[in-house]
Amino acid sequence: MPEHLRLLRDRVREFVRREVIPAEPVLLAGGDTGRLALGRLRERARSEGLWGLAHPAEIGGRGLPLTDYVPLGEAEGESEFGPAVLGSEHLLDALMLHRHARPAVRDRYLPGLLEGRVTPCYGMSEPGRAGSDPSLMTTRARPACDGWTIRGSKWFMRAARADFITVMCRTEPLGVPNSQAFTMFVVPVGTPGYRQVRELPVLGVEDGHREVRFEDVRVPEDHMIGGRGAGFAVAGERLDLGRTLRAVQWLGQARRAFGLMCRRLHGRTAFQEPLAAKQLLQQHVFDAYTDIQAARCQVLRAAAAVRAGRGAYVEAATAKVLASRALCRVLDRAVQIHGAEGLTDDTPLSRMYLRARATRIYDGPDELHVHTVAKRLLKRYAGDPEAEADVF
Amino acid sequence: MPEHLRLLRDRVREFVRREVIPAEPVLLAGGDTGRLALGRLRERARSEGLWGLAHPAEIGGRGLPLTDYVPLGEAEGESEFGPAVLGSEHLLDALMLHRHARPAVRDRYLPGLLEGRVTPCYGMSEPGRAGSDPSLMTTRARPACDGWTIRGSKWFMRAARADFITVMCRTEPLGVPNSQAFTMFVVPVGTPGYRQVRELPVLGVEDGHREVRFEDVRVPEDHMIGGRGAGFAVAGERLDLGRTLRAVQWLGQARRAFGLMCRRLHGRTAFQEPLAAKQLLQQHVFDAYTDIQAARCQVLRAAAAVRAGRGAYVEAATAKVLASRALCRVLDRAVQIHGAEGLTDDTPLSRMYLRARATRIYDGPDELHVHTVAKRLLKRYAGDPEAEADVF
Amino acid sequence: MPEHLRLLRDRVREFVRREVIPAEPVLLAGGDTGRLALGRLRERARSEGLWGLAHPAEIGGRGLPLTDYVPLGEAEGESEFGPAVLGSEHLLDALMLHRHARPAVRDRYLPGLLEGRVTPCYGMSEPGRAGSDPSLMTTRARPACDGWTIRGSKWFMRAARADFITVMCRTEPLGVPNSQAFTMFVVPVGTPGYRQVRELPVLGVEDGHREVRFEDVRVPEDHMIGGRGAGFAVAGERLDLGRTLRAVQWLGQARRAFGLMCRRLHGRTAFQEPLAAKQLLQQHVFDAYTDIQAARCQVLRAAAAVRAGRGAYVEAATAKVLASRALCRVLDRAVQIHGAEGLTDDTPLSRMYLRARATRIYDGPDELHVHTVAKRLLKRYAGDPEAEADVF
Amino acid sequence: MPEHLRLLRDRVREFVRREVIPAEPVLLAGGDTGRLALGRLRERARSEGLWGLAHPAEIGGRGLPLTDYVPLGEAEGESEFGPAVLGSEHLLDALMLHRHARPAVRDRYLPGLLEGRVTPCYGMSEPGRAGSDPSLMTTRARPACDGWTIRGSKWFMRAARADFITVMCRTEPLGVPNSQAFTMFVVPVGTPGYRQVRELPVLGVEDGHREVRFEDVRVPEDHMIGGRGAGFAVAGERLDLGRTLRAVQWLGQARRAFGLMCRRLHGRTAFQEPLAAKQLLQQHVFDAYTDIQAARCQVLRAAAAVRAGRGAYVEAATAKVLASRALCRVLDRAVQIHGAEGLTDDTPLSRMYLRARATRIYDGPDELHVHTVAKRLLKRYAGDPEAEADVF
Repeated sequence: MPEHLRLLRDRVREFVRREVIPAEPVLLAGGDTGRLALGRLRERARSEGLWGLAHPAEIGGRGLPLTDYVPLGEAEGESEFGPAVLGSEHLLDALMLHRHARPAVRDRYLPGLLEGRVTPCYGMSEPGRAGSDPSLMTTRARPACDGWTIRGSKWFMRAARADFITVMCRTEPLGVPNSQAFTMFVVPVGTPGYRQVRELPVLGVEDGHREVRFEDVRVPEDHMIGGRGAGFAVAGERLDLGRTLRAVQWLGQARRAFGLMCRRLHGRTAFQEPLAAKQLLQQHVFDAYTDIQAARCQVLRAAAAVRAGRGAYVEAATAKVLASRALCRVLDRAVQIHGAEGLTDDTPLSRMYLRARATRIYDGPDELHVHTVAKRLLKRYAGDPEAEADVF
Repeated sequence: MPEHLRLLRDRVREFVRREVIPAEPVLLAGGDTGRLALGRLRERARSEGLWGLAHPAEIGGRGLPLTDYVPLGEAEGESEFGPAVLGSEHLLDALMLHRHARPAVRDRYLPGLLEGRVTPCYGMSEPGRAGSDPSLMTTRARPACDGWTIRGSKWFMRAARADFITVMCRTEPLGVPNSQAFTMFVVPVGTPGYRQVRELPVLGVEDGHREVRFEDVRVPEDHMIGGRGAGFAVAGERLDLGRTLRAVQWLGQARRAFGLMCRRLHGRTAFQEPLAAKQLLQQHVFDAYTDIQAARCQVLRAAAAVRAGRGAYVEAATAKVLASRALCRVLDRAVQIHGAEGLTDDTPLSRMYLRARATRIYDGPDELHVHTVAKRLLKRYAGDPEAEADVF
Repeated sequence: MPEHLRLLRDRVREFVRREVIPAEPVLLAGGDTGRLALGRLRERARSEGLWGLAHPAEIGGRGLPLTDYVPLGEAEGESEFGPAVLGSEHLLDALMLHRHARPAVRDRYLPGLLEGRVTPCYGMSEPGRAGSDPSLMTTRARPACDGWTIRGSKWFMRAARADFITVMCRTEPLGVPNSQAFTMFVVPVGTPGYRQVRELPVLGVEDGHREVRFEDVRVPEDHMIGGRGAGFAVAGERLDLGRTLRAVQWLGQARRAFGLMCRRLHGRTAFQEPLAAKQLLQQHVFDAYTDIQAARCQVLRAAAAVRAGRGAYVEAATAKVLASRALCRVLDRAVQIHGAEGLTDDTPLSRMYLRARATRIYDGPDELHVHTVAKRLLKRYAGDPEAEADVF
Repeated sequence: MPEHLRLLRDRVREFVRREVIPAEPVLLAGGDTGRLALGRLRERARSEGLWGLAHPAEIGGRGLPLTDYVPLGEAEGESEFGPAVLGSEHLLDALMLHRHARPAVRDRYLPGLLEGRVTPCYGMSEPGRAGSDPSLMTTRARPACDGWTIRGSKWFMRAARADFITVMCRTEPLGVPNSQAFTMFVVPVGTPGYRQVRELPVLGVEDGHREVRFEDVRVPEDHMIGGRGAGFAVAGERLDLGRTLRAVQWLGQARRAFGLMCRRLHGRTAFQEPLAAKQLLQQHVFDAYTDIQAARCQVLRAAAAVRAGRGAYVEAATAKVLASRALCRVLDRAVQIHGAEGLTDDTPLSRMYLRARATRIYDGPDELHVHTVAKRLLKRYAGDPEAEADVF
């Protein structure tokens, strides 16, 4: 790692540990106090030059290459609030608006989004259908005199405090290939017909997820994102970068858990020796270490592939699977080492553990990626039997 | 399985599915409504002859051998409320009072306990110390003019609605061997100096666990359980049976999850075929099936060993580890197969999943049992090198 | 286990340890000395009443139910030569001849087979095709004036010392359902056109496996086994019993390795303590113990299902997979605990290890059984959603 | 990877595939033909500028940094004979002679070693003792009038064709710390009293390993390597580099197996579809891919740490464990995918599989490294609880 990057990484790390982690209880409590605290932290991040580190120069960010961002994002990710405080939380939506929104929508939302004043939300999954197969979505948008009328349900949208919603709708009849059958629209919160149906706590954690209804919601033509039928293409663009960014942040969570685990092993004694002296617990340390290293290496490969601008599905999906597994396993071991206390709210581990489980499902369950990555890898060996596939 | 047992098993299963599972939301909501519903269900169980199936004849139960109880307990365990409704929840405390309490205490609590009117609670673990090594407990009881004075803290006691508490205290000075240094006392709720300090939700699930304080709590001499210094001996008696009973109930939870998983695989489609046709999901079915079968077999071995009255640590601890692992793994797969919905409260899986995690910690973490069981097994091979150890 | 069975088990175990295991080097060396030694051991087994314990009464055996045979077969299996010495090695062929051979063939081979004088061999797999899908077999038998003419190749037949070969041939045209397209024939060794092409050492172990050719081999009509087109039906009959019997013997191998592992842990010291004191090695003991117990339980279930005469595929295939995995894992741990010495011929482990690997492939690779067992289990949940599938 | 390195990597890869792999049968057969073939291949490698790529400039090599060598070494490692043909096989011995031998010994052996004419051999392990704890070695060297007299046994030395042996001996009395109690000596083959006791095939593979005896073998003073009592220090120097180099070559083996596996999946059909279409086999591909990537990443970290000249135990031992596991797992899957054929000599997999198993034992068994690496990692968390350990 070059020196300037290491310094920046240290500053992010120090900021997260000094400012964000101590504020976690307030941020978690939410409400007005929580929102004010979040605002103040963002202000401070901005004044220290740490806001929007992952943002490309094209939208006013620092223009750091994605590979350089990896260590910074890990440091951000040590707190679940790091990305919100430092601005990387909504980078995907910002890029999407920047690239694919019509001027009216872009000008209305992008500046606020980039400053942290506007909250976006993005919806694909629908109740009652396997989210792994997006072609099953039934939310439809039909042309109306002055735009489109949307009808359907979505869930697992972080809609609780959103200002606008980007929603994927079928606009073309069955029979049209999936890649041309869906279109994205922006729905401003407050538009008649849109409502939150219910909260969706995830393993008991209220994290802003909602089930929402669109009951003949009307949006003007210029609220379309990308072209008609280009929904999957626009979504696909989000995915490789999105998977990589989230994997980066999970590494931060895993490292925090690793530190907690190691310190605990020194701090507790059983049967006349510190826990740190017991081989079965040392094994947890070794396994956690190698899980994190392996995931980290793959995340760096994904960042390089995304940065190179070529199709990065294999790298990004593999990184997602490995980082997600590493996170879940490391947290499981950290909880185990903390014993019953690890299950309570006395340490940050219980909440981290609960949030981690969902990562193996969001953005495609592990099983889907195992299947699809392997198919892609195998394809490289399908041709001339003598040709060497350049897989590694 | 003999016919009469199969019939009894079917009746328990049918009762749990007809009466208990549909009442789970009410029972979970708790409060007066929940308590009333629980009382009514117990009444119904009693009137159908299904109350107290695991209770030995010596305390007025059916006297079924423990091995016969295994399939019944599995059926009970399909609902987390099964043991409470059918009376097996507090069997350990009933046996302890029956065998080791002085008459005054026994007569005050045992009848109500056996009828489900009295709620006990049992405390070993203390905040800030490794629960796996009970010799680290610092709660002390000192002789006082008319009995004993107790001072210290306990946690992970299900004290929320308890009528009395059994608490393990050091009564002898350091240096006395652990097996003679601790004594158990019954503390009636309401005794001055006893108080609940705080709730201890476990992975966010409020399950009645509390941290409690004993601030110079005075109990009369006849509130001692067993003899002075016999605390570990009495506790040890609970453990083999306790581990076996809980493992039985976990099997019930695992089977319920297995059924949910299989039905879901038939009920969802992705990429033009039912999920049931996908090999990576079939693998979850196979693995869940073999995990449950292996655990079940070991639970039966533990029940036989406990029933035989010989030291059953190896069998019961192994059963506990295998059943706990099976439960956690099966639930993990069931959640995965349900996708994001499996993380919500829309299915019973999320709550089952959260409660399952603690089983790998309670009653000794896996790592402790792996170590201790292996040591015991190895001892059988330590003598005459030609002698065949009868391990299997 | 009832007393008479335990006594018999002890006698088998004692015989194998006293007579067979010490003779292993001679038996392994083979040649005339090996064959003579084998004959003498068989004689002794017969004189001690331990020959043919698994043989049903219908072919002159003891008629022990299969479930009773399990502990005896484990004891046999401790030596790879146990089944050959005690007569259970060729039980499947004996049953097949008994039930499906024409009198001429039966009378020629069955008596010698039952006495251990005649060596059979059975061939399905063919070079160059996935053995998991038997419909791919291309060896054909065509009607000839006085019987059938067979042409094709087989491999992984233990043909080295066989007196006759049972060979599966396509007799019906493509398009006929698999279940009616294949027929089995007995080919006496020495029939013109039959020859061994080459040895097939398995991981370097010369175990009698051969690739063989049938070049217009002519057999009379009465050398057909079962009916024309009934090849798969007859083969299927062998499979459940065959998988169960082999799994029983693998358990014996695994137990022997377990004993070697435990004794070694007491016998070696590193860093001032016996290996037995190290938690990471204790973990190997625990895992080996639970692997064996789980497999054993499933083998007993398979034996019960086969004995009950109903379709036992699920039970027998699961038993095969679990016993095979247990065997491989236990041997892997035993080798690891023996260090480099475990890789040499100084202990029986290296040979056991090498032979174990093939068990995950023979009789259907694990992946096939995982897929097929899960499909069968899932089918039980496919109907009335309220009906409880009786899977466990 | 910079362009010049990629080109060099491609040349090595191409050479190994064009020259070495086709010669494997001849090289394996050994004897004079094998030795001649090996000599010719070395000549060709030298003439193509591919000899001694890993050799530092100080001993006349190309001076490539170790990190640059990693991809080249992988390409070498695709054939087990690659390192012998390309000169990296005996790099450790060359460095040891260069740095620690007296001039007489160095001048006698080093030039031939660097040219591939002289074969060294190195011995630590002794029969009957845990090799993981070198302090248990009992081979002793005692001062004699004109040098030293060595007595003891060693095994797992590749002594079959060695010209000289480097042997670790206790020279100081018990009680002296291990780090000062052992000394290394060079013993020329042919010295009276030295003899090979027996071959030690490893899982049946004759790989040149021998048990040897030193019966009062006399060596002059200048045959000492390093200083008196410095045996462990000199050995330690070999270890980090040695583990890294071998791990690099294992990656090459794993990649070759991966390619074989993928091609086979395209080349076989079962149940009307190519094996490549089956999810359970795709999973093998995914798992093999991620195992190799994770190991490779760690090997690069180890190479960087060794190159940096600081203590690289954690990185090199972790790399050794991960590369060894990856190799074993990938080969296990490749064999499984090849079915019974994978167990025969028809593919290179069976021999690769057999050789792979030993890697989990040589140079310290996995269990030892898990324990020691974790202890080292934990130490970094032992101090100031607020200090951030820089582990990742």
